[in-house]
Amino acid sequence: MIKILIDCFGGDHCPQAPVEGALAALAKNPELYVMLCGDEAILQKELQGKTYDSSRVEIIHAPEVIGCDEKPTDVVRLKRNSSMMKAIILLRDRDDISAMVSTGSTGALVTGVLVRLGRIPGVIRPAFCPILPTMDGGIVGICDSGANVEVTPAHLRQFAIMASLYMENVYGVEKPRVALLNVGKEAEKGDDTRQEAYKLLQETEGVNFVGNMESRDLLSGNYNVVVADGFSGNVLVKTTEGTALELLKKLKKEIFSRTIYKMGALLMKQMFTDMKEFMNYQNYGGSVLLGTSKVVVKGHGSSKAIAVEKCIEQAYRMEVSKLSAKIEAEISKYDHYEE
Amino acid sequence: MIKILIDCFGGDHCPQAPVEGALAALAKNPELYVMLCGDEAILQKELQGKTYDSSRVEIIHAPEVIGCDEKPTDVVRLKRNSSMMKAIILLRDRDDISAMVSTGSTGALVTGVLVRLGRIPGVIRPAFCPILPTMDGGIVGICDSGANVEVTPAHLRQFAIMASLYMENVYGVEKPRVALLNVGKEAEKGDDTRQEAYKLLQETEGVNFVGNMESRDLLSGNYNVVVADGFSGNVLVKTTEGTALELLKKLKKEIFSRTIYKMGALLMKQMFTDMKEFMNYQNYGGSVLLGTSKVVVKGHGSSKAIAVEKCIEQAYRMEVSKLSAKIEAEISKYDHYEE
Repeated sequence: MIKILIDCFGGDHCPQAPVEGALAALAKNPELYVMLCGDEAILQKELQGKTYDSSRVEIIHAPEVIGCDEKPTDVVRLKRNSSMMKAIILLRDRDDISAMVSTGSTGALVTGVLVRLGRIPGVIRPAFCPILPTMDGGIVGICDSGANVEVTPAHLRQFAIMASLYMENVYGVEKPRVALLNVGKEAEKGDDTRQEAYKLLQETEGVNFVGNMESRDLLSGNYNVVVADGFSGNVLVKTTEGTALELLKKLKKEIFSRTIYKMGALLMKQMFTDMKEFMNYQNYGGSVLLGTSKVVVKGHGSSKAIAVEKCIEQAYRMEVSKLSAKIEAEISKYDHYEE
Repeated sequence: MIKILIDCFGGDHCPQAPVEGALAALAKNPELYVMLCGDEAILQKELQGKTYDSSRVEIIHAPEVIGCDEKPTDVVRLKRNSSMMKAIILLRDRDDISAMVSTGSTGALVTGVLVRLGRIPGVIRPAFCPILPTMDGGIVGICDSGANVEVTPAHLRQFAIMASLYMENVYGVEKPRVALLNVGKEAEKGDDTRQEAYKLLQETEGVNFVGNMESRDLLSGNYNVVVADGFSGNVLVKTTEGTALELLKKLKKEIFSRTIYKMGALLMKQMFTDMKEFMNYQNYGGSVLLGTSKVVVKGHGSSKAIAVEKCIEQAYRMEVSKLSAKIEAEISKYDHYEE
């Protein structure tokens, strides 16, 4: 049995989306056991009338609520009975629990995990690795995308190692093609950090490094992993999502502006639905936090049930593939100058 | 008469695009005088058979060619007779010339301009400010987008001042809404540079600072200027362009996959053409370099004639609006700790 904690209070659609997502994942994976964290009475009510295998569902009572404006460090220190912090502490303390999924505050989650859970031995900094669909039907992982706004070349190399193993073990991508996000393709582009990272990545046998990537090529399908500092990685991911969403909105507005367009769109209805689904990040799960001592998956704050279900599946596959042990083994092969 | 130098050898469509773009701009602006820089024989041939006011066209012979892989510093030092370097030196030395436009190498242009042309008094670093269309029909300028991969809070404040004046004077945007690119909206987000810049921008009277912007909101129309370091600004602009282009490609591919879609698309032909034009960066001119002692506009390497024409118009409007003098006056109001 694989036990996964679900932080049920944090996202925009709580607790409905986490609970429904958990039950959907439960129905598909007979080896899954979910632990729903949050206010017991509210969770009981949410479960009422639903059909599920109750022997694989447990409620962890965590009544405290994290406010939007609370500082991550205050949350970690003062809100031990919030659904997120309780999940982190349980994950740390109980050997029988494998992973946690949260759609709550990114800042609180990163701080909580760093302070209370800890890292895989050898890992300097955990990093987020969300997945985006590429135009050829593949996927690309971006690591880091927000856990570390400042990085060193050694961090970037570790991100490359961890994300490669993740893509290989969880998504079956063979020899993932790894690129370094930069302002140009040439080796000498970017600041000192980028130039040094370029050299380090070239020397790293476990990484199939193919060079620098300019951000306009992210969706081309030429890369499976893009390594970046958390600031520009965040810009990369959010700009892609934002541009896609804004263009879809614009398309919709244009279509409704003339009758003939509406007629045309009617013939293309299935195509537009497919495109929308293709670009809907809810279908690609969450942003896993690579390098933590146990599996942590962060879903979008706007996650609906389907997105939470995908996050749970990601966590499940990370655990089953023994990703953490593989990361530890690979990281230990190289010298990483510590912080 | 406003004299503008055109570097005719550098982009993908040279010299045809710069020459045709220059002649198109010439036809529209009776006060414009263009100086075409490059190999005289080739330029003469390109001009042959075209109709234009020859009293306002001059050829500046510059036979040397800049290779793709040449280091910017080598270009500046060794290729004084290349079309780009000759233009920079002429722009510096002749009072009667107002501006230059180039679609050549960004690195060589930035280095050449810094070393040979110089800055507006008080400006610490010149910065690129390309323009993107927003979904409400407006525009947004992103400053910096690649001239400075590393910045200080003082740089970011100057970018805000320069870009505000640019949007106001060249595009008629009143009290441009200025945002700082960051990983979240809250004032305490990002690294020390971002946090310090946030405070500086709040204190800057000449800037209508509205707070942090997350990259997914770039096209929302809520902002007229986004201030960023050159690295993440570059990622922001290129990701937006890349995502839009990839989605259009995907849309086209989908349409051609089924007959019924092709029929639908036929009814929507005008709409798709409009969308494509709307997203075509060639229509929005180049990336002006703000803060240089004379006007410099950099067009995309892929610029066609229409894009070069827009670049020339931008340069013309910058000169006519006396932007440089306004930047100098505004910058002088604040203390900027020097590098």
